[in-house]
Amino acid sequence: MTEPARRRGRPSRTGTGSGPGTRELILAAAREEFAERGFEKTSVRGIAKAAGVDPALVHHYFGTKEQVFAASIEVAFAPALQAPAAVEDGPLDAVGERLTRFIFGIWENPATRAPLLAIVRSAVNNETAAAVFRRLIAAQLLSRLARRLDVPEREAELRVSLAAAQLVGTAMLRYVIKAEPLASADAEDVIARLAPVVQRHLTGP
Amino acid sequence: MTEPARRRGRPSRTGTGSGPGTRELILAAAREEFAERGFEKTSVRGIAKAAGVDPALVHHYFGTKEQVFAASIEVAFAPALQAPAAVEDGPLDAVGERLTRFIFGIWENPATRAPLLAIVRSAVNNETAAAVFRRLIAAQLLSRLARRLDVPEREAELRVSLAAAQLVGTAMLRYVIKAEPLASADAEDVIARLAPVVQRHLTGP
Repeated sequence: MTEPARRRGRPSRTGTGSGPGTRELILAAAREEFAERGFEKTSVRGIAKAAGVDPALVHHYFGTKEQVFAASIEVAFAPALQAPAAVEDGPLDAVGERLTRFIFGIWENPATRAPLLAIVRSAVNNETAAAVFRRLIAAQLLSRLARRLDVPEREAELRVSLAAAQLVGTAMLRYVIKAEPLASADAEDVIARLAPVVQRHLTGP
Repeated sequence: MTEPARRRGRPSRTGTGSGPGTRELILAAAREEFAERGFEKTSVRGIAKAAGVDPALVHHYFGTKEQVFAASIEVAFAPALQAPAAVEDGPLDAVGERLTRFIFGIWENPATRAPLLAIVRSAVNNETAAAVFRRLIAAQLLSRLARRLDVPEREAELRVSLAAAQLVGTAMLRYVIKAEPLASADAEDVIARLAPVVQRHLTGP
């Protein structure tokens, strides 16, 4: 029997003297700290204190503050990062609706909306946080979808970006700024209006 | 000869002992303070100090911190608040391009981009700032455009909101998050791709 492969980029848990779950504990504390204070005002020391561990342990598991932030985004975005699979499966001529429905599913769910809101706030306010956001989301979400489109790479990425812009802007106005009538409009109505537009960006003329 | 009508909601300058231009001086200081510190960390006292005036004078001209903020948004958005006229004039079947071009004109100009960025950051981070943003922009920009559409009011406002969402999301990704390939894409190329989508939202089926 072989040991399970160690996950890439994540330090092993052995030899730290901490029990299993410490990493998760730190991550939960980090997410709350980032959500409450934003990226700039959160410190590794503060995260350690909130998690009830030594700051060295935070560094051991994650490295720098940026790396803790990237890890919390990854966890918060875990459902969104499955989007490519959910969106890629199925016919290309209905991908607009699948993508729109997927994004609304995340934002309409209070459990996933809160961490997403925290990330958006950090990314809007801080250059480092924006860079982490760009890397993770662009690379994992947009590129995979772009590869399915039957056009040159740069054209595909621009199309996916403009489709994403429609969804990002709708989320901003509906969930962040809470502008009416979008904020209280029926989700299914909004999805029905957006899906053909997103589809057009992706596969239209 | 009659005196020019006093502008609504703005206290007169007479009887304050301050020279003309004091209001503008306070407003310039306020914009810098809000841009630098965000809405929450800016105080009337701080604005007064930056402007070199007594805090009482800030209250005299503007009232509360929210009212100073609203006034700075109004100034920063002065070009955008002319959008309705610029966008309303001309044929309805090209309104998508006029609106898109107008919004890009503001964001592509460094002089108007900086204050806009400050407002967006404040609105994303603070509920009071978001409310001010909603009131001013929704009322002045969106409603006027909605009135030109030949559909019931609520339908018109929803259409204008979704068109705005496309433009807001594009601005977020291009100018705030700076996500590629949108951040470095040619502005005219992006306008050409967005205009028909915005048009479709406004006057499509």
